[in-house]
Amino acid sequence: MTNPPRRMKIGINMVQNGAHNSGWRHPDADAGIANDFKGYARIIKAAEEQKIDFMFLADGAAVRIPHKDAEELSRHGHIDRFEPLTLLAAVAAVTDRIGLICTASTTYNEPYALARKFASLDHISDGRAGWNVVTGWSEEEALNFSRDALMDHSERYERANEFFDVVTGLWDSWDDDAFVRDKAEGRYFRPEGMHLLNHKGPHYQVRGPLNLARSPQGHPVIAQAGGSGPGRDLGARIADIIYTGQKDKGIAQEFYADMKARVAAAGRDPDKVMIMPGIMPIIGTTEAEAQAKLDEMKSLVHPAVGLQLISKMFGDLSDRDPEELMPLPLPESNGVKSAIVQWERRLERTPMTIRQVYEEISISSGHNVCCGTPAQIADLMQDWFEDGACDGWNLMAPYMPGGAEDFLTLLMPELRRRGLAQTDYAGDTLRSRLGLELRPNLRSGDAQSASDEAIAVSH
Amino acid sequence: MTNPPRRMKIGINMVQNGAHNSGWRHPDADAGIANDFKGYARIIKAAEEQKIDFMFLADGAAVRIPHKDAEELSRHGHIDRFEPLTLLAAVAAVTDRIGLICTASTTYNEPYALARKFASLDHISDGRAGWNVVTGWSEEEALNFSRDALMDHSERYERANEFFDVVTGLWDSWDDDAFVRDKAEGRYFRPEGMHLLNHKGPHYQVRGPLNLARSPQGHPVIAQAGGSGPGRDLGARIADIIYTGQKDKGIAQEFYADMKARVAAAGRDPDKVMIMPGIMPIIGTTEAEAQAKLDEMKSLVHPAVGLQLISKMFGDLSDRDPEELMPLPLPESNGVKSAIVQWERRLERTPMTIRQVYEEISISSGHNVCCGTPAQIADLMQDWFEDGACDGWNLMAPYMPGGAEDFLTLLMPELRRRGLAQTDYAGDTLRSRLGLELRPNLRSGDAQSASDEAIAVSH
Repeated sequence: MTNPPRRMKIGINMVQNGAHNSGWRHPDADAGIANDFKGYARIIKAAEEQKIDFMFLADGAAVRIPHKDAEELSRHGHIDRFEPLTLLAAVAAVTDRIGLICTASTTYNEPYALARKFASLDHISDGRAGWNVVTGWSEEEALNFSRDALMDHSERYERANEFFDVVTGLWDSWDDDAFVRDKAEGRYFRPEGMHLLNHKGPHYQVRGPLNLARSPQGHPVIAQAGGSGPGRDLGARIADIIYTGQKDKGIAQEFYADMKARVAAAGRDPDKVMIMPGIMPIIGTTEAEAQAKLDEMKSLVHPAVGLQLISKMFGDLSDRDPEELMPLPLPESNGVKSAIVQWERRLERTPMTIRQVYEEISISSGHNVCCGTPAQIADLMQDWFEDGACDGWNLMAPYMPGGAEDFLTLLMPELRRRGLAQTDYAGDTLRSRLGLELRPNLRSGDAQSASDEAIAVSH
Repeated sequence: MTNPPRRMKIGINMVQNGAHNSGWRHPDADAGIANDFKGYARIIKAAEEQKIDFMFLADGAAVRIPHKDAEELSRHGHIDRFEPLTLLAAVAAVTDRIGLICTASTTYNEPYALARKFASLDHISDGRAGWNVVTGWSEEEALNFSRDALMDHSERYERANEFFDVVTGLWDSWDDDAFVRDKAEGRYFRPEGMHLLNHKGPHYQVRGPLNLARSPQGHPVIAQAGGSGPGRDLGARIADIIYTGQKDKGIAQEFYADMKARVAAAGRDPDKVMIMPGIMPIIGTTEAEAQAKLDEMKSLVHPAVGLQLISKMFGDLSDRDPEELMPLPLPESNGVKSAIVQWERRLERTPMTIRQVYEEISISSGHNVCCGTPAQIADLMQDWFEDGACDGWNLMAPYMPGGAEDFLTLLMPELRRRGLAQTDYAGDTLRSRLGLELRPNLRSGDAQSASDEAIAVSH
């Protein structure tokens, strides 16, 4: 008996009104779709028809674009979005099989509240929930949550580790079969099936139990995307799916090997942790048609928007001429460290003008923009997948809904034809469909005291 | 031209697996329905068919039943429930007209996060969201949120007032027509349509704006149920709907008159604030049949459950013989003050045994249990409604789904026949359907600076 061939995992990254920051200006774009539940749901249903593994919603609890005034901000299209757990719960009610993953921050939530919400979503969706664990990088969020500034990077990660242990401990509050609801005996649950958490750590103190039965997946799928050292270590310890922005195959292979090694070092099976970079397909029936689409999209970026964007990522460049070369080293900034390092390595090899950089970032948010025919794009996806650079992909649309329709109707059939993408959903839950580690309740029965101790000493 | 006749507002209070704490033991009960989205949704769709104005979900972020161990707790049926905003978002996707109101605490949430969630629900449901503002009364919640004890009553209300102002201020972050999304000009919103909150109060510091367009209702409907002095004042200032537990018509009339006077004193129109007590109809084709149903339900209460329940409400009575008379005055406790005062007044007139009290409370949670034929129950509801005791009712089922099916199929047609309940939904949003104050954005246009100042000085 041989193992079934490894298949590519595919997600759809539903970024507001498109991942291209100026995609909303595209003539075919529905610029207000991030504020239109029915329009959003239509895309997700179409993704389900194409057997996409899951949808993913990033999030931030703020308008996260730095700006000096409303006039300046008003040129940006990524302003409004639904709160993702609210949206995913509504989507759960109108879909059946597609996974539902969203971001929630460990810095601005309470672990008890978050554990309840994801467990509720997992119940309501029959085991399709997933949590992308982030610590939050934006000053703007801090100002909305009674803080004067963004919390220090190391403190954020320290809290994230503890927060995660509390949430997963709460998810194991009850044995899977604890709720017997025995009417005759007047016994609602088996007393030995309840496990108080009694967590007392440096940042959180949480007694439990969760006021909800254990959910179909036990633990909703965990995604994570931190590229820094502490971010990678957290991912290696907790994540089932690692999101990453990778534009260069060699760097992607290095990242892939590093993450798999960290997963193994954390005592986990590297084959059960999926590395899934983002990719934005720009699809044409010919290469020239695709390139013309890409050029049209680049022309949508207003210089004021572009200069602001790179200033946010790389330090202040707002007074520069867009035709100047990007300075090296990059100015000091609070941007995402792993992205900065990647860009510096790339610019050392291939200098680019400021305009070239902001056009590219505007379109892709640092992910791989792949322009060509369906076959050409599938070639690249297959090459990375088969050559140790990824376990699958998160598809990103430059604008909505057309950008998503393109890859759903043109690219997905090509991937299926090659036997790379699934032809139907298999398995009971998102976790089992993705071939991830199952999460039995380690606090049940005999394992209870050992596990209680493990949680008590983890911080 | 005459005004249309005043109509009774009707809500359905979806208490976990039934409002009777032992209702889950009823032979016809689906004891696990609080953990079954599709079962819950079926009841709510049936309520929508009967033109019920809204569903309401109470909440607590804990298993809120004090207990010395799991053995003791395991006899109680109100253990598990979905997180209500997650549930309501899913319900929104499968219903069209029924209002969706749930509880969220000002003590254990962040105002920015909560403002987003209710605004998202209001968008997703096309203007059907409502927020029941509570401060939380249980020690058990505090222990799940890194606190050693329940916050002091007056501090909770002080925070609630400030929290509410921040949330409503965030809901007015954008003019209704702010998002122009002008592709040609590259202008996503009108700069003058954005209003930063810049709130700095004793408990919260929130800059804004909300990262979501103003919702269909502007402000989701506000419900409130605090019966203490500070609770009534908060309700008079902010609420559109006042929930209340009332079992005695005279006391209900006093409460009604007091609340309407407080609303007027707060400068608001008393006719636009609805007083809606709970009522649990126990319906039979004859009075004797209904009484037999009630007796059967009483027999479901295990004495251990009953004694624990009244000890939680009224102080420790766990060692007493259930056949003793209730002591007066009641022991010192942290129970809901208004309920304690009402019970003391009632017991002074009519002494009851401990068992009689716990059976009644077990069934109704302190609300009006009305036992009889549909006509008899409608008589009482009509009498209170026409005699200055209420503006409508929250229907409560002793167990699910049968208890709800009874009042939906037997009582609602009787109320409609009398012209008391609506025969169809009218209006664009829950707020307009209930005849509540509309909430234009007072921060728009000329009113902006005045309103900004009002918010800045409100605390």
